[in-house]
Amino acid sequence: MGRVTGSVRTAGCEWLEYDYGPGLVPEEGPGTFTMWRYRSLLPLSEGPVRYPLPIGGTPLLSVPALRGALGTPSLWVKDETRGPTASNKDRATALVIEDGLRRGLDTITTASTGNAAVATAFGAAAAGMRAVIFVSVDCQEDKLALMTQAGAWVFQVPDGYAAAVDLSRAAVEEFGWVDRNTGVNPLTTEAKKTVALEVWEQLGRRMPDVMVAPVGDGPTLVALEKGFAELVACGVADRKPRLVGVQAQACQPLVHAWLGTTPGPDELDAASTVADGIAVLRPAIGDAVLQAVRSGDGAMVAVSDTELMEAVGLLASTAGVGAEPAGAASVAGLRSALRQGLVDPEETTVVLVTGREIKAAGSPTLGRVSVADRLDDVRQALGMVHP
Amino acid sequence: MGRVTGSVRTAGCEWLEYDYGPGLVPEEGPGTFTMWRYRSLLPLSEGPVRYPLPIGGTPLLSVPALRGALGTPSLWVKDETRGPTASNKDRATALVIEDGLRRGLDTITTASTGNAAVATAFGAAAAGMRAVIFVSVDCQEDKLALMTQAGAWVFQVPDGYAAAVDLSRAAVEEFGWVDRNTGVNPLTTEAKKTVALEVWEQLGRRMPDVMVAPVGDGPTLVALEKGFAELVACGVADRKPRLVGVQAQACQPLVHAWLGTTPGPDELDAASTVADGIAVLRPAIGDAVLQAVRSGDGAMVAVSDTELMEAVGLLASTAGVGAEPAGAASVAGLRSALRQGLVDPEETTVVLVTGREIKAAGSPTLGRVSVADRLDDVRQALGMVHP
Repeated sequence: MGRVTGSVRTAGCEWLEYDYGPGLVPEEGPGTFTMWRYRSLLPLSEGPVRYPLPIGGTPLLSVPALRGALGTPSLWVKDETRGPTASNKDRATALVIEDGLRRGLDTITTASTGNAAVATAFGAAAAGMRAVIFVSVDCQEDKLALMTQAGAWVFQVPDGYAAAVDLSRAAVEEFGWVDRNTGVNPLTTEAKKTVALEVWEQLGRRMPDVMVAPVGDGPTLVALEKGFAELVACGVADRKPRLVGVQAQACQPLVHAWLGTTPGPDELDAASTVADGIAVLRPAIGDAVLQAVRSGDGAMVAVSDTELMEAVGLLASTAGVGAEPAGAASVAGLRSALRQGLVDPEETTVVLVTGREIKAAGSPTLGRVSVADRLDDVRQALGMVHP
Repeated sequence: MGRVTGSVRTAGCEWLEYDYGPGLVPEEGPGTFTMWRYRSLLPLSEGPVRYPLPIGGTPLLSVPALRGALGTPSLWVKDETRGPTASNKDRATALVIEDGLRRGLDTITTASTGNAAVATAFGAAAAGMRAVIFVSVDCQEDKLALMTQAGAWVFQVPDGYAAAVDLSRAAVEEFGWVDRNTGVNPLTTEAKKTVALEVWEQLGRRMPDVMVAPVGDGPTLVALEKGFAELVACGVADRKPRLVGVQAQACQPLVHAWLGTTPGPDELDAASTVADGIAVLRPAIGDAVLQAVRSGDGAMVAVSDTELMEAVGLLASTAGVGAEPAGAASVAGLRSALRQGLVDPEETTVVLVTGREIKAAGSPTLGRVSVADRLDDVRQALGMVHP
């Protein structure tokens, strides 16, 4: 307990004073709670971790007002907005880069228009690695500003996002770069599963009954399943939670696949939702998502843009958590799952808030953005000698 | 060390497997490193902390590439962008609200157009308190969206920012609300001083030689001075670091006050810099800033907008830290101080990155923003009964 012994006014401020002495200062060093805590379950050889940004150890929030609003007394929010670039993409980026550093590689690449690209650019900068990012030509200016200010090289691919993915993968093959493409490198799953390990520890080494997560390409949910399953495999837990995956109504291929129904054209329009982060027409690991949901007796639900924006407001106004619409999708999805009877209000439920967008200051860096159709364009822009 | 025993491909993914057993799971509970760690030096009575968001315990980053770029081998970055609303305002908000909860109060107010208002809105939401925020009429739409989505009531004051401050203070007097106005409530200094305590612990219970911080109204730098001084007073450190305060060239009243010179009109134009967060024409506790800088043999420096944007890029590209221009001012200021010989490159120096702006999703909430000239307008909008 801090005992204030008095207060003085000086220089226009009120200063509180204490009975100073060594006893007021804590003894032990600060604790650490980061992703590397779980390195026994990560594919890392021995030796110190070189990746310089603290990763993971995000809060599991007790949320009384949100519990009240939803009528779910045992609800928790796992808040991934606290990472270095404010999304759960930071975990995958960290492990992929750590592995690349250990293999002596100096360049990392990905195709993305969103949080994964920003996380890759900033993570590479921190680690002293070069980032080469492939985007479609309609990538937002402020995303370009973030990536290029972090020193990344950005290539706009005229033929669109799928072509950008192809070019990034080709660069991996041709140049031996580190591959940070979603759903490709298994390290991304390994890293993201630490969210499940943290949730279990943060609940006092207990499993939740249900965990709800947004689903775009799928790695976030699939990684949760792997993390929970490994705790069971380790013999420290006796069951996995049910997983509920959430997609946007406007782009819900996996909800229909789970239901065994056929989506209409207005349910496969990735461009028409506020939740661009999860609007993926052909999810990279959709089958794995369905398997993960089924294996745990879970479910897939779709939510409208109105519900997504309500979820953004609900998280802000009842939990003090600022999320982007895709990041708040699990809250909207939980409401839908409760209405459908897929989740019982009394169950211990964790909603994963995957992130918020970070705001760019200023404009894209000159000379760091160019157009590329083929690897030769990349070679030329980066001044690479043709073999 | 994690030993991967194999990998299988299923559902389109590669899965790594381990020799599972209880020994792979860490034993002890997660550590905690938050602001409340220092409660012996905070004016809190006994009892559990009710404020629900984890606050403080932000990283002190080792920044090899930034060290190389600046030629400062013992440089560290204290990264305050990791708070719930991504700035050091979260600390003051937390302590002020904690105190208010303990006093049984239900409403908090502040006048601000920036990070303090956003921090107040989100912190109040998390704690179940009502936030009433007074802004000038030119407050940005996206700031209004953030505040109102978090459930805050926002009043636009036609007579400008100074009138907004007056109205917020008057509401404190009249309605007994919690006062979160910068430089007024001493709890804001108490909270922000924990940054200094953390830096000292994170350096291995050692003082830096120099700490550099942005200066607007002044509380951030003044609180650092108090924190360091209290460590000396506690007998655990034998000296304070020198403090270097940084202002924007376009609005640098305290730099001139420190130099004893008279600012020109283009050095007192708060509207003409990208660093709006530190552009304050009449700093609330300017005298305290000058005293803190002088008492530690420190300095005040001014930096141009070009230098501020370069600092944003330098932090992103060498340290992987995304900051707003005002948040990056300490990096720009350090470069200036090095050029002027105010800091020796070999000294152990900590630059405080105060924050980044968070991005709003959507528009301001209808019915939560109105115009107020007098307290009666506030009473009416909030449905308060006139006494």
